[in-house]
Amino acid sequence: MEQLTVKTKNCSYSVHIGKEVYDLFSTEYKELLHNADKVGIFADATAASYHLEKLEQALNAAEIAYELHTLPAGEESKSPLSFMSCHSFLLQHNFTRQSVLIAFGGGACGDLTGFVAATYMRGIPFIQCPTTILAHDSAVGGKTAINMPEGKNMVGSFHQPAGVLFQPDLFATLPKREIRSGMAELIKHALISDADWTESLLLNSDFPNFSADVLSSELLKGIQVKAEIVEQDEFEQGMRKFLNFGHTLGHAVEAYFGFGKVSHGECVMIGMAYSLLLSESYGDITPEYTERFIRFSDHAGYPMQAILEVEFSALLPFMKKDKKVSSGELVFVLLKSLGNPFTQKVTEEQCEHSYYELISRIKGEVQT
Amino acid sequence: MEQLTVKTKNCSYSVHIGKEVYDLFSTEYKELLHNADKVGIFADATAASYHLEKLEQALNAAEIAYELHTLPAGEESKSPLSFMSCHSFLLQHNFTRQSVLIAFGGGACGDLTGFVAATYMRGIPFIQCPTTILAHDSAVGGKTAINMPEGKNMVGSFHQPAGVLFQPDLFATLPKREIRSGMAELIKHALISDADWTESLLLNSDFPNFSADVLSSELLKGIQVKAEIVEQDEFEQGMRKFLNFGHTLGHAVEAYFGFGKVSHGECVMIGMAYSLLLSESYGDITPEYTERFIRFSDHAGYPMQAILEVEFSALLPFMKKDKKVSSGELVFVLLKSLGNPFTQKVTEEQCEHSYYELISRIKGEVQT
Repeated sequence: MEQLTVKTKNCSYSVHIGKEVYDLFSTEYKELLHNADKVGIFADATAASYHLEKLEQALNAAEIAYELHTLPAGEESKSPLSFMSCHSFLLQHNFTRQSVLIAFGGGACGDLTGFVAATYMRGIPFIQCPTTILAHDSAVGGKTAINMPEGKNMVGSFHQPAGVLFQPDLFATLPKREIRSGMAELIKHALISDADWTESLLLNSDFPNFSADVLSSELLKGIQVKAEIVEQDEFEQGMRKFLNFGHTLGHAVEAYFGFGKVSHGECVMIGMAYSLLLSESYGDITPEYTERFIRFSDHAGYPMQAILEVEFSALLPFMKKDKKVSSGELVFVLLKSLGNPFTQKVTEEQCEHSYYELISRIKGEVQT
Repeated sequence: MEQLTVKTKNCSYSVHIGKEVYDLFSTEYKELLHNADKVGIFADATAASYHLEKLEQALNAAEIAYELHTLPAGEESKSPLSFMSCHSFLLQHNFTRQSVLIAFGGGACGDLTGFVAATYMRGIPFIQCPTTILAHDSAVGGKTAINMPEGKNMVGSFHQPAGVLFQPDLFATLPKREIRSGMAELIKHALISDADWTESLLLNSDFPNFSADVLSSELLKGIQVKAEIVEQDEFEQGMRKFLNFGHTLGHAVEAYFGFGKVSHGECVMIGMAYSLLLSESYGDITPEYTERFIRFSDHAGYPMQAILEVEFSALLPFMKKDKKVSSGELVFVLLKSLGNPFTQKVTEEQCEHSYYELISRIKGEVQT
């Protein structure tokens, strides 16, 4: 079992990766859970149907009673209505400030459960048990949120988990698209931190379908990158913004198609290609590198052609709602060089020009 | 103009009381508001109809543009639906993380606006401009919340304001009932902190209708009590619970009648009489003192008789949802002696017995 510690201003917690990670309910997390007057599992319906038994067995072995609340699968669970139902569930089951929640599912489940935990009676602890690769990103760092009709993750809090338990053998049941989605964030962690690591990922012909062992060690590297950034800038006043590399256009594409229609990571991969292309103007990224990235993405199964028929004007309103927008100007995370991110204001005109350039590059590199 | 500073772990802010307090938009708060890309006023409909002009004039004089969002008057604004409409308003008007909110209204408006500010894009600053006496309590200390069908203030955050601007001449238009409601929290601040101050309030035949000057100086004393407690225990792990004196039964009565039907402070006054009665068993409060408190409350216009026909069993479920409940036991803030609060677990049987004793005392002291 691998472990690393995330230290923030007000707390410190561990991230564990390994096959036997739920055994920690009987050891490291026993006190927290035994001192709680109630333990609630918020479980994504799909994750629960495959794997809930593993979590339940571990809790039973640790003699921890719990109430189960099953959430709609995926992004649907992050609606305002679902958020309020979670609170009603807790109130109707007499949860108190001394209760603890466990999130069992992908990123959406973790984001929702975290936001419920952040706001139930003004805050209770929660443990992240991510069941997807994508959640290696979202489960660490304390960003919690729900979606609004107007945009993704628009309402939320910073609320750090009490621990993150990552059991990689759950990924065996993930659909290929979900694996791809998660691996996009891994590529992101590489791109913003380490040129050599990025190169090794781009050259690995197994990508995105790594063996469990390789996957564990790669995810740990990704979490390490994220943890270091979060430790230095928990509330996203500065360098934490780098973690949004590829997300400004990515979120807009995701919102345009309707959350969940094209997966988060697929949209981020398109967004990263766009950010690389913008980095040609503001940094040292070459057109050849951007084109190689598009080919790599296409080869790995990312639907880069999804945006070919989408007009820039349809995406702009979503980009303007991005949380990094400052005084109405669009702000992007770009790369000075591989591993060296910075933030850059970009005019609407430049954004539009580069967007159509991206479409033209995709047409050139991808067989549609 | 009077001023005091509240220092919490992560921030420090000022509370100002005085006739010219909105002039601070042109001085102390000018930088915050000029650096914001958007300023939003969330105004209680009733407060706005009487006094919004004063706020608008001050903002105009400071050359600060703003968007106005009017909220339903009172507790209605604290519904989940109203919370979500506020977020939609901000998104539709392109508010960003660099925007600032101003709460203009009573406690409900401040609680809601604070919770919206706490959660919009994971947190933006807000300024409290309370328009009621009651809000001298809620505007300071960073507790924000909305109500759920299952209970009051069940969903919320700790989010400290950037400043609190208290203009006491707005109180001239408050209905008597609203004045009574606010003064209950003042009595509470006295009871939990200072026997002499409490005595001076109970002996003051003007209570609760003080002149503007007396009121300002009394409210400042109340805020000082609260600020000192909040500084030592921002997240209510210990002594901040003392501020809930009278609120366990008070909230239950308020919820039983439906929020807003009997005012918050009126319910807290009933709750404080109950807590004094419980303090006879666990502290040095005498039955005579409790009875004097009931007479005082009745004389000042508080509807102590409201609960005469209410069964304990109808209130218990609401008390069990109180945020101070621990492992299913009822926990009350009681007084060892005047000015010396402590927390005490009380059995359901004792609670019930004391409740009917309270009813009998009210019948004895109050002409119904």
